[in-house]
Amino acid sequence: VTAPAALRRIEVVTIGDELLLGFTIDTNAAHLARELAAMGIEVVRRATVGDDAPAIRDAVGQALARTGAVITTGGLGPTSDDLTKPAIAELFAREMVLDAAHLRWMQERWRSRFGREMPESNRAQAMLPAGAIKLPNNHGSAPGIWLEDADGRFVAMLPGVPREMRGMLADTLLPRLAARRGSGAGTVVRSRTLRTTGIAESLLADRIAPLGPLESMSLAYLPGLDGVDLRLTVRDLPAPEADARLGQASTTLLSTIGDTVYAEDSADLAEVVLSACRRAGKRVAVAESCTGGMLGMRLSAVPGSSDVFLGGVIAYHDDVKRHLLGVPDGALRDHGAVSEPVARAMAAGARTRTGAEIGVAITGVAGPGGGSEQKPVGTVWVAWDVDGDVEAERLQLWGDRHEVRYRAGQAALARLRRRL
Amino acid sequence: VTAPAALRRIEVVTIGDELLLGFTIDTNAAHLARELAAMGIEVVRRATVGDDAPAIRDAVGQALARTGAVITTGGLGPTSDDLTKPAIAELFAREMVLDAAHLRWMQERWRSRFGREMPESNRAQAMLPAGAIKLPNNHGSAPGIWLEDADGRFVAMLPGVPREMRGMLADTLLPRLAARRGSGAGTVVRSRTLRTTGIAESLLADRIAPLGPLESMSLAYLPGLDGVDLRLTVRDLPAPEADARLGQASTTLLSTIGDTVYAEDSADLAEVVLSACRRAGKRVAVAESCTGGMLGMRLSAVPGSSDVFLGGVIAYHDDVKRHLLGVPDGALRDHGAVSEPVARAMAAGARTRTGAEIGVAITGVAGPGGGSEQKPVGTVWVAWDVDGDVEAERLQLWGDRHEVRYRAGQAALARLRRRL
Repeated sequence: VTAPAALRRIEVVTIGDELLLGFTIDTNAAHLARELAAMGIEVVRRATVGDDAPAIRDAVGQALARTGAVITTGGLGPTSDDLTKPAIAELFAREMVLDAAHLRWMQERWRSRFGREMPESNRAQAMLPAGAIKLPNNHGSAPGIWLEDADGRFVAMLPGVPREMRGMLADTLLPRLAARRGSGAGTVVRSRTLRTTGIAESLLADRIAPLGPLESMSLAYLPGLDGVDLRLTVRDLPAPEADARLGQASTTLLSTIGDTVYAEDSADLAEVVLSACRRAGKRVAVAESCTGGMLGMRLSAVPGSSDVFLGGVIAYHDDVKRHLLGVPDGALRDHGAVSEPVARAMAAGARTRTGAEIGVAITGVAGPGGGSEQKPVGTVWVAWDVDGDVEAERLQLWGDRHEVRYRAGQAALARLRRRL
Repeated sequence: VTAPAALRRIEVVTIGDELLLGFTIDTNAAHLARELAAMGIEVVRRATVGDDAPAIRDAVGQALARTGAVITTGGLGPTSDDLTKPAIAELFAREMVLDAAHLRWMQERWRSRFGREMPESNRAQAMLPAGAIKLPNNHGSAPGIWLEDADGRFVAMLPGVPREMRGMLADTLLPRLAARRGSGAGTVVRSRTLRTTGIAESLLADRIAPLGPLESMSLAYLPGLDGVDLRLTVRDLPAPEADARLGQASTTLLSTIGDTVYAEDSADLAEVVLSACRRAGKRVAVAESCTGGMLGMRLSAVPGSSDVFLGGVIAYHDDVKRHLLGVPDGALRDHGAVSEPVARAMAAGARTRTGAEIGVAITGVAGPGGGSEQKPVGTVWVAWDVDGDVEAERLQLWGDRHEVRYRAGQAALARLRRRL
């Protein structure tokens, strides 16, 4: 028996027809990668296969041969499409055996929690590969499985439901992997992100190019709805050195492109704006036409936002603009709902009707219909009223309905941030 | 030279450190799978690798050896982390050559569109593997690439930015793949989804079990925030027979679990509710506290919703509940903001203040803070007022802040749908 090598690299296999057919977006893989990177274990490859035993065996077998350390998600639930355990048991040449204690636990849980007998379809969850270690599931009924061979190569099987997977990962699997990783080596994979908005990827690249390559560091450009994120990553360094290098590199970048950066790491622009309002001692309200509540949703998604975010009005129909925001009939009649006077009146109405110090308004043509020659799809007016001083800007945004709405909210927040 | 076999199976390799590190959720893979399935081409495996030339070569090479047909996304942009083209050129033993026409087109595009010279960092986009066919990009500046060997094995390289990938797929790649697939065989992979809400996965399975296995069809249980989706899939049948089998199977399922099904396929519950309002000749407005605009956002996300969705009030702060919705001081003082009297008054206020026939209200404790023994996190009151007739219900929801908010909106819509 060889002692297992210190764990640095791992592969992930996500399992399920729904992933392969594209009916579910695979969010588990991203969550796993972030959590593992934080402890210095790098996901070096990922594969997705359907609910198909030979494909599961093949993909997991290849990953084991390459890396010796594999996490799977999916295929542990009660229903008939769940094949992960038997497929991987076969790969390790193990029988499936009934875990009587787990069966009793599940039966008891159904009685106490749901007041009824456990459905027969849950019984398969109590079958385990011989020699497997159960990973307790405090967030559902299917336990995770740890299966290991004599050479220390292992597969950790987690459920596919994101909430259960995340819970089990945090409770049980991460501590087990940390022990495998060994603390002596003490190196990490660490990243820092500079979030930019309002500038194209290649223009950013041109401004950054004169700096030359960054020392022992990768720089990725990640364009998205929020703007372009710049992600710096260092690998295999002790944590203090990794942090120092990231700190130096981000200082260098900020000296060149600081005007485009609104936040570091994962902070949402809504969070940045709420902090700015809090510092300024001002409360904010919204008036939303084409975004229909999306801006309010983003602001209220931030826990603890209630001290500065008051709410506002979803003024989708013009009558609501008139009656709840006081937008003048004349402005709507003469200029239309997507116009500077209406945007300004909406911002002022949001402020005065809620008693806030700041009102932010959005009115536009999100598409796919409703565009005209003067106001094509993507035409959006945003306005912001700070203590009665109103400014407005016309935007021409691109993308589908969701993208136009999201970008309109992002632009309104960026304008307000600059103003504050 | 062997004539390429009719295309039925394909593999997808998505490329990018940001995907492997988990900083971007891979939505391209799901989109590709759905579009390909609709034309009878099945994605049989998916892999994700980082911006690492050997890993790209290895993963694409294995997929080519297994299936002979590969689509990649990512790594075609202007920045230095883009390695896809040279890595795959090496796999096919091709040189990289400058495409002068494309370089000129890009230079011209920068002048006419942005009024400036093209950044040097875009130049790499004009380098192509020798013998490659360019796939035009009408949604960005990096063309896609089609590279094929003498045996008809191919790799189609698409950009990673979702909007560009989707546009190029629809404009150029799907027609090319359709020709490869051949129309003679005429079989498809086809799915139908029954969307349920308000019932657990294993209870659904128990109700369905007595039906026995469904003939030549797979049935997947897909639990999510909306509820549990049931996905039926048939493969390799002519389209009319596939549709007939799916129709029979869904009729059988509906006879057993029809009470839990609110829609077929991808329809959102908001869309179903808007249609019900339209049929009933009633317009709807919202009053949102803890959801902060999320319900309005979902209703207004449906194109053409403006004939029945008027808007409403985001009553995050109690003053907004009082002033814009007319919630009585006494109700707030005696029962608190999360209570039946307040929910009822909010629903009535949404209806009367906007002039709608229906008002829907949500008030609750979304967490992570704000819970108490009487009203723990997840306590939500929903109320719906139809023509002055108000009903309300207390819910106890689980999950994180986003999940509680989303489930509150879903439950409010489900109640309104039942009422209509």
